[in-house]
Amino acid sequence: MTNPTAAMIVIGDEILSGRTRDSNMHYLAQELTKAGINLAEVRMVSDDPGAIEGAVRALSSAFDHVFTSGGIGPTHDDITADCIARAFDRAIDVRDDARALLQVHYDRMGTDLNAARLRMARIPEGAVLIENPVSAAPGFSIENVHVLAGVPAVFQAMVASVVPTLVGGKPLLSQSLRVFRGEGDIAGPLGALAHDFPDLSIGSYPFQKDGAYGAQIVIRGQDAAQVDAAMTRLSRMFDA
Amino acid sequence: MTNPTAAMIVIGDEILSGRTRDSNMHYLAQELTKAGINLAEVRMVSDDPGAIEGAVRALSSAFDHVFTSGGIGPTHDDITADCIARAFDRAIDVRDDARALLQVHYDRMGTDLNAARLRMARIPEGAVLIENPVSAAPGFSIENVHVLAGVPAVFQAMVASVVPTLVGGKPLLSQSLRVFRGEGDIAGPLGALAHDFPDLSIGSYPFQKDGAYGAQIVIRGQDAAQVDAAMTRLSRMFDA
Repeated sequence: MTNPTAAMIVIGDEILSGRTRDSNMHYLAQELTKAGINLAEVRMVSDDPGAIEGAVRALSSAFDHVFTSGGIGPTHDDITADCIARAFDRAIDVRDDARALLQVHYDRMGTDLNAARLRMARIPEGAVLIENPVSAAPGFSIENVHVLAGVPAVFQAMVASVVPTLVGGKPLLSQSLRVFRGEGDIAGPLGALAHDFPDLSIGSYPFQKDGAYGAQIVIRGQDAAQVDAAMTRLSRMFDA
Repeated sequence: MTNPTAAMIVIGDEILSGRTRDSNMHYLAQELTKAGINLAEVRMVSDDPGAIEGAVRALSSAFDHVFTSGGIGPTHDDITADCIARAFDRAIDVRDDARALLQVHYDRMGTDLNAARLRMARIPEGAVLIENPVSAAPGFSIENVHVLAGVPAVFQAMVASVVPTLVGGKPLLSQSLRVFRGEGDIAGPLGALAHDFPDLSIGSYPFQKDGAYGAQIVIRGQDAAQVDAAMTRLSRMFDA
């Protein structure tokens, strides 16, 4: 059985200008790996309707799931929901159930649900809401696209709401070994190992520590016995 | 004058699986912003020839520059140089000048320049080498694609080698203001400000601190007088 695939779209000029360092991609990658869903591609795009819509169309037809991060707040630069609606040719308007969630939240805070905040209840036709236990304004899923907030605490809460509802695959298992030799010395035997275990992904990540060269070798796969067997051979290779 | 545009391709299963957190994207974003080159899109793809070649073709025809990170070491999973050659229909082989750089480096270390290490001298036909002062193995530029190492120290050194050789634009200026009100309260006036300064990008980034809601408002643009004018109006708006 092949695991489901996923892609992510990180939306926001502040990421591309280097003002903000994205942390949502790394978080989602770890959660999807645990769930047995293979994150296959990530695109980071600016707050530009054409760029967002193009990425949504391309990735939603190429992968089982798409997650977006960012652009669903109350300000003028929050254009994600409208772009998603256009990408799927759906109408978008304030929806009663989303408005009710906001009303309860802002009533409790004694804050006015003004026109700007009400924009956060704009939901494309046919979408399913994603719960936001942090700040009420919901995300939503439409077809295979899951639209999440960019603020990391809210993004993470929404990931916790939506990922358990998806059909996962076998979790990707991994084992790793630190080898204190230059990558150039281990490359030959490592290539042979990769050749003998075609179902496993064997990666080599070089490092330099206290002047010595080394590499972290990571063996990943879905079959525990295979991962074990490859790791046993790997340890013997570099133990001598 | 419009600034040159750029895209980046981050290559590596270890990023997409969540094992490693990429730091090269954030670094490059900051360096390009300083140089007046607009980073417009980033794609993170796996160690898969089709994915790498597809991203190279799509982005090199859409943007002025493309930077890649990762996959140019000596091991079997380092396939970037071959993928770049295929994307541009160029031959690839060990090149004498690249081999000479490696020979000097490994001679000095007393290390054998074996077949695996020699793979790092494989350079697509017609490429220009990018200096690597950290570990000798060069990157290269071919057409508008700059192929850099994934190890952050080496990536950063190569960025320092190549970015100053590119024609930059006006640096993007930015000023920011922290406003201690909920985004929903500032959204209206902020939208009006953005409308009055169409050449500026005005972003709002919400935060929560000690239970209070606020937003960091960032005004970006190439014209210092306009940025100043917008910031003056912004300060007056939320000073009352």
